[in-house]
Amino acid sequence: MELDRLEKQISFIVEIDKLKHIVRQTLLVDSSRQENSSEHSWHIAVMAILLGEYSRDSHTDLLRVLKMCLIHDLVEIDAGDTYCYDEEGNEGKGKRERKAADRLFAILPPGQSQEFRELWEEFEARGTPEALFAAALDRLQPLLHNWRTEGGMWRRHGVRKHQVISRNRHIEEGAPMLWEYARNLIDKATERGFLME
Amino acid sequence: MELDRLEKQISFIVEIDKLKHIVRQTLLVDSSRQENSSEHSWHIAVMAILLGEYSRDSHTDLLRVLKMCLIHDLVEIDAGDTYCYDEEGNEGKGKRERKAADRLFAILPPGQSQEFRELWEEFEARGTPEALFAAALDRLQPLLHNWRTEGGMWRRHGVRKHQVISRNRHIEEGAPMLWEYARNLIDKATERGFLME
Repeated sequence: MELDRLEKQISFIVEIDKLKHIVRQTLLVDSSRQENSSEHSWHIAVMAILLGEYSRDSHTDLLRVLKMCLIHDLVEIDAGDTYCYDEEGNEGKGKRERKAADRLFAILPPGQSQEFRELWEEFEARGTPEALFAAALDRLQPLLHNWRTEGGMWRRHGVRKHQVISRNRHIEEGAPMLWEYARNLIDKATERGFLME
Repeated sequence: MELDRLEKQISFIVEIDKLKHIVRQTLLVDSSRQENSSEHSWHIAVMAILLGEYSRDSHTDLLRVLKMCLIHDLVEIDAGDTYCYDEEGNEGKGKRERKAADRLFAILPPGQSQEFRELWEEFEARGTPEALFAAALDRLQPLLHNWRTEGGMWRRHGVRKHQVISRNRHIEEGAPMLWEYARNLIDKATERGFLME
């Protein structure tokens, strides 16, 4: 019985290796290639350890934030990564991702299957301090990469300043000071021509 | 003053992007390519969430385990990844990694610089339940990949069964049931010729 439980956990661990193949619309800082969603998830998890002090709610549970950072993109294994400025791609996104969550989390033993589903839904709903903070990091990281690559992916996709602001402004709900920082980067990026007015 | 602190944290976040370039001697499960150390760190962090119940010490602090999983390989940014069966490469490893830790963690603001150094040293020393459990996952993950790729990297490097056992047996100190599971995989891998006697 216990071995059956462990086998399920191991199956899931092997399955999620596929996240390393999901390519995102973010360049690495040295512009050499696009990053994948497992790399991104690792990066924002380290950011959570470092930037916890900026969470709007001073009682934010860091363990739950880390869990959300680590698993929030797993549904992309089936649903793929949808570029946030791709309006068409974003239409069926919710449905595709829920279907992915159904399949993926069902691999896990009872209890954990539910825990992962709930964490993912909490992240998506952005209704708790933990979800708001994790979601802020999820947006801040690509913004830092676009800044450091002189607008790498913004330029490639012809993204405009007002789109970046409207897409990222919820950073403020999770971490006001990080939004202030991001807002400043967006202005500087526009001045330098990394981003179109 | 507060902005200076945030600038240091952001500099570190940008710096560690380099971990995505550190290629490890582990194949992805589909054998398409070798993984890098940020992907590996993400993977063992998710494993920690799932497998916590197998830690030898039932009071293992999962938050500290996750932190160790996420940062344990950062020193490779300067020191590179050393294949565990490469005896020559392992000779100067400790010194190279300490030098890397000196440079990297100094980027962080005071307090966090120390916290990261201590977490890394705790992981390396394997003297606490948290470090033992994180270290067990750090060894179990490549073992799973070698099993799933029919001995991928073991074959490429001519690794032998006794080497795999001696290298991985400390999994038992952190998670006895996971070592039992791993020991069984090693036997099956040898039977099937994925690993030489």
